[in-house]
Amino acid sequence: MNLESLNTPAALIDVARMQHNIERMQQRMNALGVRFRPHVKTTKCEQVVQAQMNAGARGITVSTLKEAEQFFASGIRDIVYAVGIAPTKLQQALALRRQGCDLKIVADSVACAEAIVAFGREHEEAFEVWIEIDVDGHRSGIVPDDDTLLDVATTLCNGGVHLGGVLAHAGSSYDYDAHDALVHIAEQERSGCVRAAERLRAAGLRCDVVSIGSTPTALTAEHLEGVTEVRAGVYVMFDLVMHNVGVNETSEIALSVLTTVIGHQKEKGWAVVDAGWMAMSRDRGTQRQKRDFGYGLVCHEDGSVLDGYLMSGANQEHGIVSRCGAPDHEIDQRFPIGTRLRILPNHACATGAQHPAYHAVGADGQIETWPRFYGW
Amino acid sequence: MNLESLNTPAALIDVARMQHNIERMQQRMNALGVRFRPHVKTTKCEQVVQAQMNAGARGITVSTLKEAEQFFASGIRDIVYAVGIAPTKLQQALALRRQGCDLKIVADSVACAEAIVAFGREHEEAFEVWIEIDVDGHRSGIVPDDDTLLDVATTLCNGGVHLGGVLAHAGSSYDYDAHDALVHIAEQERSGCVRAAERLRAAGLRCDVVSIGSTPTALTAEHLEGVTEVRAGVYVMFDLVMHNVGVNETSEIALSVLTTVIGHQKEKGWAVVDAGWMAMSRDRGTQRQKRDFGYGLVCHEDGSVLDGYLMSGANQEHGIVSRCGAPDHEIDQRFPIGTRLRILPNHACATGAQHPAYHAVGADGQIETWPRFYGW
Repeated sequence: MNLESLNTPAALIDVARMQHNIERMQQRMNALGVRFRPHVKTTKCEQVVQAQMNAGARGITVSTLKEAEQFFASGIRDIVYAVGIAPTKLQQALALRRQGCDLKIVADSVACAEAIVAFGREHEEAFEVWIEIDVDGHRSGIVPDDDTLLDVATTLCNGGVHLGGVLAHAGSSYDYDAHDALVHIAEQERSGCVRAAERLRAAGLRCDVVSIGSTPTALTAEHLEGVTEVRAGVYVMFDLVMHNVGVNETSEIALSVLTTVIGHQKEKGWAVVDAGWMAMSRDRGTQRQKRDFGYGLVCHEDGSVLDGYLMSGANQEHGIVSRCGAPDHEIDQRFPIGTRLRILPNHACATGAQHPAYHAVGADGQIETWPRFYGW
Repeated sequence: MNLESLNTPAALIDVARMQHNIERMQQRMNALGVRFRPHVKTTKCEQVVQAQMNAGARGITVSTLKEAEQFFASGIRDIVYAVGIAPTKLQQALALRRQGCDLKIVADSVACAEAIVAFGREHEEAFEVWIEIDVDGHRSGIVPDDDTLLDVATTLCNGGVHLGGVLAHAGSSYDYDAHDALVHIAEQERSGCVRAAERLRAAGLRCDVVSIGSTPTALTAEHLEGVTEVRAGVYVMFDLVMHNVGVNETSEIALSVLTTVIGHQKEKGWAVVDAGWMAMSRDRGTQRQKRDFGYGLVCHEDGSVLDGYLMSGANQEHGIVSRCGAPDHEIDQRFPIGTRLRILPNHACATGAQHPAYHAVGADGQIETWPRFYGW
């Protein structure tokens, strides 16, 4: 199978770029002296995750219990489900643990801790729980100096639960685009999570794991003292949002969508392509960043950037490709019907999720189909 | 199976609302004296489409050839693929026709028409082609008075292709929210497409089908003289974008996402739920409308609207529910951990696509699983 034989739209992975991204992150983590636990929500693809494990990753992070089930079935035992668990999902978590999965779950409230304790007692299961720490006001978690931290920890420990550690994610790092600001938010993530661990230890509690991470902070942190492991997801593919943040070149983006030109509106300078938002996702993450890439940056079929051409609009199965600035009234000559283009996505996690499989393009141009799953 | 037994997040269809929406549209089309051809891209779900056919629909519209293949396999022969065909997809279209599918394809350029003629000659297949008409500058198609219309038609007819008709979609109707403006764009869609058909007939060519439609124009057109059929998709579920356009009440929205509260940030007035953008989609279609619903409007578990609460933010598997205006500092009491809520979506086509199946909730509260497919 090669590029010409693919139906469009199709999600392509440039395997050489992916491998470069995996090695860049793993080497950095090795140099910083921490374990690396990739977040598999980005690809939900066995072949990609296997490449991450082969490079030295230790365990995985998941965003759904379905991911835990699928990757445990493919042989990975050490899994953290990094979303605060709904009490109704404890049965599903229990089933995984009973099958031998070393599943860690997360809580950030006394109510959730109490539910885990009660369920654990009823089923005679000592769950391992990590407490989520809020280091940047972005989403979930307990502020390191909030007394709730100790309340949750003692609820868990007194209830026979194994308090495994603390976990934080500086999601607000996506909002910055200057190196100094990223270094600052990375240090805030590190120091906040370490502070929480120290408070637990000062209260006489064990806290072995200090787990932090996001792609921008993982790639800019100057040191990771007190941290035991880092989590990151999107780095494996990179995308235009991360390019705007400043952590990758467009030439490092491993995911693209192959599409075919199906029409033109010459007066407007539009080429219409057969990849719309169903293929790209509705993610407009670059809208508020320093450069708005519309629905994606246009490349030649070989993956080289056609600078100045964006997917400027998208309907479900139609994309509009146009030149930035003055309309290209010769676009029908430049990209005749049948022309194949590749589109670099705003957000690799969102774009990948629209596709049942990736088409992995090797250095020799040969293509393998790498399935991915979705749902809950 | 009932609501309590569902894992979250889950896409729910309120079957009574869906049936109401189907009957409303079909009765209107019957009264206007046109055939109705639903666009199945909204749900890609056999049970939903069967309900549309049972109510009187004649044939279906698809946005991908995969939809054509799946629904042909389930017994529907009369199918129009309403996206200008890429020449490389002609083999797939041919295979469907050879199996007995009455598949119509679409073109809006001489180059595409020539490709269809050449492929048809090579394979001795007289494809049926509908010419796409641009009635509002929204996307694809040929302006009714453009000479390209006749060039495309004669290319097809001289090449042994069956010119079946003309087709238009006033996608810009989504941009309006006043009844008079909708009536105007509906008339523009009707008259533009009829004008194109008349020009073809004046040139001595047959043009049996005059196919138009979008949910807003189908529900506001005052008459459909000269039109033979209407296409619409999202009406079967409706959503918040259509509510802002003014064609449905929130109480008519048949699709919602069931979610569970997993945490709080009390100071900010946030409840964190286990449906994020993966469950809702990244569609922010209400962002530029008269009311911005964030990622969705919050309802009680029974589907009644909790007016004033929105999903104001979303990460991949986390949603943030908050009150419009002043923060609700008692949100942890109002929606304790484990509370189930339903979220009405901005865009039913985009939200449905994130889910492997719908959970169809009958009037008796019993739930059936209705699979849906994705990909190309």
